[in-house]
Order: sequence, then structure tokens, then C-alpha cells
Amino acid sequence: MDKEGHVQDISGQSVKVSVIGASGYTGAELLRLLLYHPFVQIVSITSRQYEGKCLSEVFPHFCNSSISFLKFERYEKEKIAEISDVVFLCLPHKTAFPIVKELYETESQLKIIDFSADFRFTHPEVYEKVYDVKHSAKEIFCKAAYGLPEIFREEIRKKSIIANPGCYPTSVILGLYPAKVSSALDVNFPVIADSKSGITGAGRKALVSLNFCEVNNNFRAYAIENHRHGPEIAEKLGVSSVRFTPHLVPMNRGILSTIYFKTPFSEEKLRTVYRQFYKEEYFVRVKDKPPETCNVAGTNFCDIYVTKDEKTGIGIVVSVIDNIGKGASGQAVQNMNVVCSFPEDTGLQLFSNWI
Amino acid sequence: MDKEGHVQDISGQSVKVSVIGASGYTGAELLRLLLYHPFVQIVSITSRQYEGKCLSEVFPHFCNSSISFLKFERYEKEKIAEISDVVFLCLPHKTAFPIVKELYETESQLKIIDFSADFRFTHPEVYEKVYDVKHSAKEIFCKAAYGLPEIFREEIRKKSIIANPGCYPTSVILGLYPAKVSSALDVNFPVIADSKSGITGAGRKALVSLNFCEVNNNFRAYAIENHRHGPEIAEKLGVSSVRFTPHLVPMNRGILSTIYFKTPFSEEKLRTVYRQFYKEEYFVRVKDKPPETCNVAGTNFCDIYVTKDEKTGIGIVVSVIDNIGKGASGQAVQNMNVVCSFPEDTGLQLFSNWI
Amino acid sequence: MDKEGHVQDISGQSVKVSVIGASGYTGAELLRLLLYHPFVQIVSITSRQYEGKCLSEVFPHFCNSSISFLKFERYEKEKIAEISDVVFLCLPHKTAFPIVKELYETESQLKIIDFSADFRFTHPEVYEKVYDVKHSAKEIFCKAAYGLPEIFREEIRKKSIIANPGCYPTSVILGLYPAKVSSALDVNFPVIADSKSGITGAGRKALVSLNFCEVNNNFRAYAIENHRHGPEIAEKLGVSSVRFTPHLVPMNRGILSTIYFKTPFSEEKLRTVYRQFYKEEYFVRVKDKPPETCNVAGTNFCDIYVTKDEKTGIGIVVSVIDNIGKGASGQAVQNMNVVCSFPEDTGLQLFSNWI
Amino acid sequence: MDKEGHVQDISGQSVKVSVIGASGYTGAELLRLLLYHPFVQIVSITSRQYEGKCLSEVFPHFCNSSISFLKFERYEKEKIAEISDVVFLCLPHKTAFPIVKELYETESQLKIIDFSADFRFTHPEVYEKVYDVKHSAKEIFCKAAYGLPEIFREEIRKKSIIANPGCYPTSVILGLYPAKVSSALDVNFPVIADSKSGITGAGRKALVSLNFCEVNNNFRAYAIENHRHGPEIAEKLGVSSVRFTPHLVPMNRGILSTIYFKTPFSEEKLRTVYRQFYKEEYFVRVKDKPPETCNVAGTNFCDIYVTKDEKTGIGIVVSVIDNIGKGASGQAVQNMNVVCSFPEDTGLQLFSNWI
Repeated sequence: MDKEGHVQDISGQSVKVSVIGASGYTGAELLRLLLYHPFVQIVSITSRQYEGKCLSEVFPHFCNSSISFLKFERYEKEKIAEISDVVFLCLPHKTAFPIVKELYETESQLKIIDFSADFRFTHPEVYEKVYDVKHSAKEIFCKAAYGLPEIFREEIRKKSIIANPGCYPTSVILGLYPAKVSSALDVNFPVIADSKSGITGAGRKALVSLNFCEVNNNFRAYAIENHRHGPEIAEKLGVSSVRFTPHLVPMNRGILSTIYFKTPFSEEKLRTVYRQFYKEEYFVRVKDKPPETCNVAGTNFCDIYVTKDEKTGIGIVVSVIDNIGKGASGQAVQNMNVVCSFPEDTGLQLFSNWI
Repeated sequence: MDKEGHVQDISGQSVKVSVIGASGYTGAELLRLLLYHPFVQIVSITSRQYEGKCLSEVFPHFCNSSISFLKFERYEKEKIAEISDVVFLCLPHKTAFPIVKELYETESQLKIIDFSADFRFTHPEVYEKVYDVKHSAKEIFCKAAYGLPEIFREEIRKKSIIANPGCYPTSVILGLYPAKVSSALDVNFPVIADSKSGITGAGRKALVSLNFCEVNNNFRAYAIENHRHGPEIAEKLGVSSVRFTPHLVPMNRGILSTIYFKTPFSEEKLRTVYRQFYKEEYFVRVKDKPPETCNVAGTNFCDIYVTKDEKTGIGIVVSVIDNIGKGASGQAVQNMNVVCSFPEDTGLQLFSNWI
Repeated sequence: MDKEGHVQDISGQSVKVSVIGASGYTGAELLRLLLYHPFVQIVSITSRQYEGKCLSEVFPHFCNSSISFLKFERYEKEKIAEISDVVFLCLPHKTAFPIVKELYETESQLKIIDFSADFRFTHPEVYEKVYDVKHSAKEIFCKAAYGLPEIFREEIRKKSIIANPGCYPTSVILGLYPAKVSSALDVNFPVIADSKSGITGAGRKALVSLNFCEVNNNFRAYAIENHRHGPEIAEKLGVSSVRFTPHLVPMNRGILSTIYFKTPFSEEKLRTVYRQFYKEEYFVRVKDKPPETCNVAGTNFCDIYVTKDEKTGIGIVVSVIDNIGKGASGQAVQNMNVVCSFPEDTGLQLFSNWI
Repeated sequence: MDKEGHVQDISGQSVKVSVIGASGYTGAELLRLLLYHPFVQIVSITSRQYEGKCLSEVFPHFCNSSISFLKFERYEKEKIAEISDVVFLCLPHKTAFPIVKELYETESQLKIIDFSADFRFTHPEVYEKVYDVKHSAKEIFCKAAYGLPEIFREEIRKKSIIANPGCYPTSVILGLYPAKVSSALDVNFPVIADSKSGITGAGRKALVSLNFCEVNNNFRAYAIENHRHGPEIAEKLGVSSVRFTPHLVPMNRGILSTIYFKTPFSEEKLRTVYRQFYKEEYFVRVKDKPPETCNVAGTNFCDIYVTKDEKTGIGIVVSVIDNIGKGASGQAVQNMNVVCSFPEDTGLQLFSNWI
């Protein structure tokens, strides 16, 4: 895709891809990324709401692209299972697991990348408690990996179902994992993750509370007591619990998580640990200055800054991603690259528009 | 209300006011303005959606105000007609006229200030054509005045029903009227009104197209062929037709209309005409520099700039208002002041927050 | 000013007020508030940059107000000291203390309300260290009170110089003080204040980093290691240190601080403590739901929410203010009301425009 | 670059490119686009302000790209002329022509793409009048073409200096040209171009008037009497004059021009004319619905909608571009493709992020 030589258009190597529920924000972003992917052929996009319409009718920004005239179809499991190598599911939690199940049962060779929370926890019981719903596909939980490649790459390679992580968890787990595995984290002290998200994180919903006028020039915290990403973060980090507080920023894309933890390590040692941990990872950039969300918008990068407040002994991490990039669709493409054995940055060597 | 001596709290003089449909953007703004009005007592606010809730529960910004604990009620014509001197109707077109009718029939002494388009035209037939709906209260059309006090003040004083003007028409009519009545307007050349509005103009609706993400960092024209404010502008200006194009600006409040017309007058003469026409009007400020919407946000002012392009012979007016201030709720209070014989700026001596 | 009977225009009671450095964001906001104050007569406004210009030329939103034609003057200590009862200083730190000193020495009866940090600390040595500058007016430090009326009202009444608090400290101190004085705060655990501010907080400066394009649709942390408001917060709260992290939100006005502390108290007990502490305070509204900045924009209110995360034992406070309202100019007017023995809400019974 | 087969990495065919003045908004956007161009090797970037710094230090969003460690250099004509095949000049008017001149004189084989206005007019006298400055390189005016490939492609191929068009003129000329050449334009009636631009159009300058707070939630017209793009539009369209009014929209990227002209053509005929005129042009998309700026942000597309107001006989065009895409850096790359005989969409097959 670019001049760095990562991509060669090897005929015969391309994968056939379907996108289920392609008319939301993550669906549109996924299609945009797939468009730049040299080894992908999009064979089907589905949407109940837009069935029968052309992609560029619904999303005029795709006009003149190679997928401009692709039609939104009704989802049919047999057809999707038959024509696809990889299926992306951009559906809300609870609506995803029945479809994952039937697709898996129809064609076990399929690679399914699920954007919902339905297969993210290790045990279905935790999911059922956190999401307050019965899970009817517990028997295939063991087929799923948590799709954070920087940490769970080997497991992802082996599984058929990839549970694409939540956006907040991606920013917080990447931000804390190096501290966790290097004993930099004093476990007697609770971890605090104060996260701020752009509004695409709330999805493409018709809600008065998401109206431009009620978001613009305004800032708020929400779901302070019980956001479902808290348990996801805690489980993947292997800590008993995390104090997680999400906030809404009047911007479209981006999450910035400010993470606090007690640490015996010095600032210098923390920085060394982080640089070392991510030194082979293209998508994580450990920075010398606090990062801004504009530098990762539209990309699959996670920019991380770590420092220490010597007076209080608190380690501070600032971690930024694009919530629908590395926090959703970018990460989904990265997961596809892992499961398909493509170079991991294939189709993802996009840089931010910045302003 | 301020130190300029316009307001004295004369007991016995206060009017009892009800607000029907008080839970939208114009309703909330109206309540905010009435709160500062020394001669007003709010006796009832109605909302189907929020019936039984306290004002400050629905609108926390009113917490600790004197109307904090006012309860949203269900609308009942007898009660409203009985307890009110003035009724404000913040309802959409078509839902307003039956209520205006029944209130008028119940109590003909009532002053009704209607935010909808239902009584804005001189002839109900025009309304029916423009809004594509049957009007069932034609017999009271003659009781209504068009509520633009700077132009129709005398008529407003005499009528029971005040048809509060549309936001776009307010900005365009105030911007063109001095030219019209002074023969500055070459009527062989169509008038062009290119208007740009903040998003509150679209109302408090749950629509994906009004979601923060689809408005933010974006600009668009809409209803190019057939916006209903075009005929309203033309009728009140007394011209055969106006080329009116509305646009949406990613901001909350404000309309800026750029108006073009052929004129034989010089720039200097145009400015003189405008200053002369508005010299007694507190709420219209004729400016030496092009105005910005931020200077009128939250107020009842209309800032106007007029100039001429000598090369093309075109006169240009830039007119700005707050679409829910002078374009809706501020103007409604001004109309109430006119019909109640209060000084016209009573409760409206508010200046913009600017930034 | 409103109908609640707080304000009577008692002749002879009005104070003569000067505003030094009136052309920034806090200066403009202060003038707006003073305009609504029934006991204030603005006798002088100064600005080096705009000397000789009319107020409404520099700030068109004041056009048609009673102070529209007030001229920006050059500052002269004798004149200001002679004609004023109260002087507001809207100047940056380090430029304020020489002026405070000379005004105090010229006229010791003057009430001086200083927006800068120059007299905020108890000991000048702390100031010198935090701001890395010599303080040349140490001898009058004892004449100054920290102007947070909810907490230091009695001291404010007695002093001539009022050090108006920083915007971040106002939000954090009001948010934590009830916990501190009620032993709800486990002092073995550092307090964490994660604050998010609108861009007016950065002042009216010509900086590329404040350009619309580099702020819009972007979010960032800044001054993580050494923001000067950290020591101010710690001193006033009486804790050894606070982990304070400021962030910039793409909005004009508002601060939201999310504050974390270890507490033995239950959520219910915390709420009771907070309600009790502020029950007589008009400007602090203890809320049942997390507050939003839009509800306090343009006002002197501070909305506070307190809760507890039982799993981690962490108390969480969300505190919102308008950074140039309660965080600067509103609080300055409140301080003036205290020192002048006016009812504390005089001229401050303004509610937010909300949207 | 994508899967549509337009690009093959033919070794030996790549051009060596320098960017002079690369640290503004158009410079950064140009580098982003060149990064995706398979036939380009960036050999030098210059900036006085950032001399000696790495690209990714100044623009962190380029971190991990192939040009991350490119250093900003001081401009030296001999070096630039020697090592470059193509030079992009991202400099303001008046500072560009001396550099164009000396580069041309040093190496006449060089292709120079100039972002400034210095070579846009046919006659230097017009430039001197419009920009009120002496032009010291009149002798090379004849070497320059106006770089709007859809209209002047053949001339661009033959010239050494390409005067990259202004952003407003690009949107207006593309929007009107089909009407002009098809006699759809009644020349007795002045053309009105009412344009609205995002804030990047004002450049990366330290100005209080561009501060976030003074732009956000605000809308204004500017330079109503004398914007310099008016004469550029009129000359290229071949009309005597155009009534051109620019406005500032609180968004980063995008121009929407609403254009009015008297026409004898029907709406249907206008649409046919436009579709016909642009049927071979990849970058101009003639639409069935009014376009929005979000669909072209970050791209080289121009979306155009044409309609007619039958009542007034006025034709209306809505034309949108990204002001730093098709309005500057995208168009510059397109011009490079033309002069280098690359397929014109090479490196430009990028679609908008949409939200």
C-alpha cells in the first residue's frame, strides 16, 4: 500500500470478506480501511435498515471508490458462510452471539471477528453478570480469543472467533500492561482509569442526548458507577478491580485515558520498561511528550506517555487511540491480518489527517 | 431589571403566563428569559413527555431559581384559559392551530403568542399550500398579527393572537425592510437570501442526522428547493419571490443571513437609510463592521451591516440574530411586552456571553 | 435584579468600581456581570492595548448597554485609587503584585480583588518557589485573604486584598473540602484530581497552539508534571500533596474535575456530609446525578456530585464550574459582595443559557 | 496504492520532490499525501522556524512513517535546484515569486508548483493591483500555467511553473465553468458566490482572532468588500466581475460555495450539462443531492450539485471541496501527476474519514 515494501499484490492470496451491520460508525470505518487493504475482496455487506441501497448512496464519501456500487444485503447465514473467508460483525452485544454461533456451526473454517462484547470475557458467567443477559452460545466460548494482538497475538492466531476489544479497554490495557507485567504496579493500591472519549463511541443512534446542541461546548462524566468496560479492563489486566470513569468530549473520534497507579519504579525505569515492552510493536508509539488524540485519529496507532509524580509516588500513563480505529475497526483489521498471516500493518499504514 | 431605570416592580401589574410545550429548545430559552422579567408570574408549564417532573429535574440549569420546583403539567384548555393572561405556544406547526382555536374560544381576552407557522400568513390558503395541510381555524386568522414589532408594532397591539415569526424570516426581513420601503430595491432583480443557522434551529429531535458526529466539523445546505420560510419572507417583504437557501453551521445558536439585491443607491445612502429606519429601535443595531453571531447569542438583538459592491451594483446585507432569541423566544417576550404595554426591552436587557 | 426580592436600588449605596486589564476573557466576563449588578457604578476600565477605544468597539456585544461608550484608559495609580471603592485586577501573575502594592499604599481603604496568583499562598516563599519569581510586596501578604467565600468568608470580610482563587483550585477545593473536614479523606492515600478545562482557561493569547484548528476535535493533557495549581490546591485543602492533571477540552467555558480519594465513609454518608456542608450555600448545588458543564456556563454555580466505588473503596467527586464564572469573574463579584456587605448573590442570579 | 490497478511501482520512474515551507497546514497535508504516492521520493523539506528538527518532532502524527526522521532544513536554492525534479512552494504571496525566479533561473528543467497567488493571473499588472505589491519576476509569467487540471490540463503539461489555484476559486470555478461554457450563464446578471470556509483556510498563524474561543460556536463573514479571490475567480471564468463573499465556519477543513446565476436553462438541462462536462473527471463528482463538506474532507474530490429556482430563474450550484485538499495540497499533487505524466489519481485515491 505504501512505499515501505510491506505489501505485494500476490494474486490468489486475497481473502473474501463480509461485513455484517455495516451501516454504523464502526462499519463505515471498517469499509474505509478494507478499501486500502491489498489482500481483501469485500464480497458482502449487510444492513437491515439500508437493504437494497448502494454503499455510496448511504455513505456518499465512498462515491468513485471500487466499492461504490456494492449493495447492502439482508443477512443470510448460509450465503455469508459460503462466500466468506472472514466475517466482521459490527453488531451490538447480545445480538452478536446468536449470529456468531450459527455462522460457526455452518462453517467452522470461517474466521469471525466480533465487535461486540459477547465473547470478550474468559467465562460466560462473567459476561452474563456484567451485561445482565443469558448467553446462549457458551459452548463456543473456548473458540474465542481476546483480540488485542500486542498482548494476545499467539492465542489469536489459533482461534476462529476473535472478540475485538472495547475501545476504552484497548486504551487502558495497552497503557497499563507493561507496568503490570514488570511489577511496577503496587497491587495494594487501586488502579484509577479516567477516560475521555469522542462521541462516535456512543454509536450511531437517534438520541436527544447525542444531539449536536447537547454535546457541543459541553463536557460530562457518565456511567460512573457501572460502566461495563470496567470489568473487561480488570479481567484482562489481571487485577481485582479498576476504578474506571468514562467522560464524553465534544469531538468525533479519540479516547484519551489518564491512568494512575502506585509504583515503586522511578520515572526513568518506567519509561525504559514501556519502551522495551513495545519496541517491536508498530502500532504502539511510546512518546516523550503527552500525546494528543488528533495524532491518532483515523489510524490504528496507540500513543503512550508514562511519567511519575515523585511527591505522591503515583505513576501516570496517558494513552490515546482513535476509538473507532485501534479501538474498533483498525484493530479488527489488525486481527484479520494476524489470523490470515498477513504482515500486521497491511492496509493500516495510514497516518492521521492531524487537523 | 438593570440600572437604566426601565423597570419598576409595580405590584398588581404582573401578568400570569403559561408555556405550552415547554421542554424544547425554544421553551427552555423562553423560561430563562421570563425568569428575568419583573412583571411576569409563570403559572403553568406543560409537556406531555415530562408530565409530573420538576423543571430543574428536566433542565438542571434552572436549579436554585425561583421556578426550580415548577412541575410540568398536562395541558388542559380550561385551566390554562382560566389562570393565564398570556399563553406561549411552543409547538410545531399543525399541532398549534387547534390549541390556539380552543384557547381563543374559551377565553377571548387571552393573549396567545404562537411560535408555530400556523398564523403567520395573511391568507390561510397560502399556509395550506406551503405547509400542505388543512387549516381548521381559518375564522380566527383575522385575530392574528405577524409578531415582528419593529415593523408591525401597531397591529400587534390590537390583536389577540401573535404569530411569532420564523427565525430565518426575522433575520431576512429585518435585513431587507429598510431597503424595500426606501425604494433601494430594484424589483426587476430577484432578492437572494443565503442563510446559515446554528443547529438549535432544527429543534430538539432524536434524529441521526442531528447527531453530534454528523454535524460537527461539517457544513451543508439543505431544503434548497423548497424551504417553507421562503414564502413567509416574500409575503412580509411584499416581493414576488425570494431565492432563499438555508445552511447548517456546526454551532448551537445563531443565524447569519447574507442578502443580495440590485440597488441604485450608493453605499453611503444605503447606510443612511438603514440607520434612519432603525434609529428608535433598541434591538436592531446597525453596525460599521460585519457582525458575528457570537455577539447576539443569548440576546434579542439583531445586528445588521449594509454595504454595496459597486462593480456589480449589488447591495449586500449581513444580518445576525440568535435563532432562539430574536428568532423565537426573545421576540416572543418582546411581543408580550408590546401587547401588555410594558416597555419593550423589559426583561430583555441581556447581553451576550460573547465566548 | 430578579423577582426574588434580593435587590433594592438603594441610592447612595452603590460602589465605584475600576477594572484593570479589562480586555481579556475574564475582564469581559467581569464587565458583563457588573452590568447586571444594581449597586455598582463602573468608573474606569483600563487596557494598554485598547487605550482610547470605546468598550463596544472592542467588545461589540456590549453595544447598546449602559457602558457601551466607556473608554479604555491608561492605568494611573493616583486616579484609580482616588475614584474607586473597589478595584479588580485582571492581570497575569507577577504583573499584579507591584500594582496591588502601589494601590494599597496610595489608598489603604481600597478593596482590591486580584485575579492573579500573587497573593494566593499563605507564605510568599511558597509563591516564589512555585512561580519562580521574586515577590516584591511581601509586607502586604498579611492583608490578603484567599477569596473562596464558601470556605474563607470570615477572613475575606476583614481583608483589603482578596486573592481570587485559580479556576482549577476552585473546582477541586469545593469538591473535596466537605470530605476533608469530615474525616472522610484517608490521608494515607494521595488525592487525585483529574481536571478538564475549556479553552478560555488558557487566556486570550495569540498562540498557534490555541488556534481553532489545533484545539477543535482534539483532546490533550498538559503540564502533567508541574502545573502551578497543584500546590495551591494542596495548601488550601491542608494536604501534603495532590496529584493534579489538567486537560484541555474543545469547548469555550467550563471545568469538570473528577476527584478520587480513599474513604472509610459509605456513599450515603458522603452524600449527607456534602449536602450538610453546603446547605446554606446558594452557589454550590449538590446533585443526585453527575453534572455537566453546560449547566453552569455563564454562571457562578458549582455543581457537585459525590459517590463511592465500593469495590475499591474510592470516593469520587465530580465538580463543575464555569472557569471564567465561579472560577474567576463570578467569584470576584461574589467576593466584592462579601467585602461590601451586599447579599452574596447580588448581580449573580444568572442562569446558564444551557445550549 | 489501492486495488484498482492504477499504480505500479516502476523503479527508476520516481521523482525527487522538495517542499519549501513545509510546516504550515498545507505543507503538512502535502507531506501526508506524498507519503502515499508510489512514485515520489521526498528529498528535502525546509522551514526557517523548525530548521534542524525532525518531521515527527514537529508533526507527531508522522511518527513511524517512512519520513519520520526527515529533518527540516534551511532553504538553499542551489541544493534544492540540484537534487529536485519537482519543488512545491508552500509560501505566502510575495515571498514566493523571488524564490520561483531564482529556482527557475538556476535550473530551468525544474517543475515548480507554487501555492501562492504570485503567478495565478494572466498579467502581472493585475496581480500587482490586486495584491498591492510590485512583482519582480514578470519575465517568467509566461512560463506559468493556472493549475486547475480539469480546465487547463493541456497548458499545465507544457509549463514549468504551476500556479496552484486559491481554495475559494477552485470551488467556484469548478462550480460555474460548465454553465459558463455552455451558455447557461446570463451574462447580464452578476454571478454571486457565497462561500463558507473552514478555519485552516486562514493559515497557521498566531492571531487572537483565530483562537479557538473566538471561532468556536461562532459564524462570520469577512473581507466582504475586497477579498483577493474575487478577481481570480472572475478572470478564470472570463466574466467581468463576481460578487464574492467569504465566511468562516467553525470547522477545520472544507469549503462550501453556494453560487447563484441567472440562466435560461432548465434544471434538467443544467444537470445534463454538468454531468457531461465532468464525465471523464475522476475528482469531480456531480451529485443528485446537495453535498456536505464531510464527504470530501481529506480528499481531492470536488462534489457539485446544480439545480434551478424556477420562480426567480436563478441557477444554484453547491460546490464542496477540502480547502487544503482539492483547494491546495491535493490539487498540487494532481498537478504534479499531470506534469510528470503519472495517472492523475496516483497517490490521491484517498476517501474521507467522513466523521
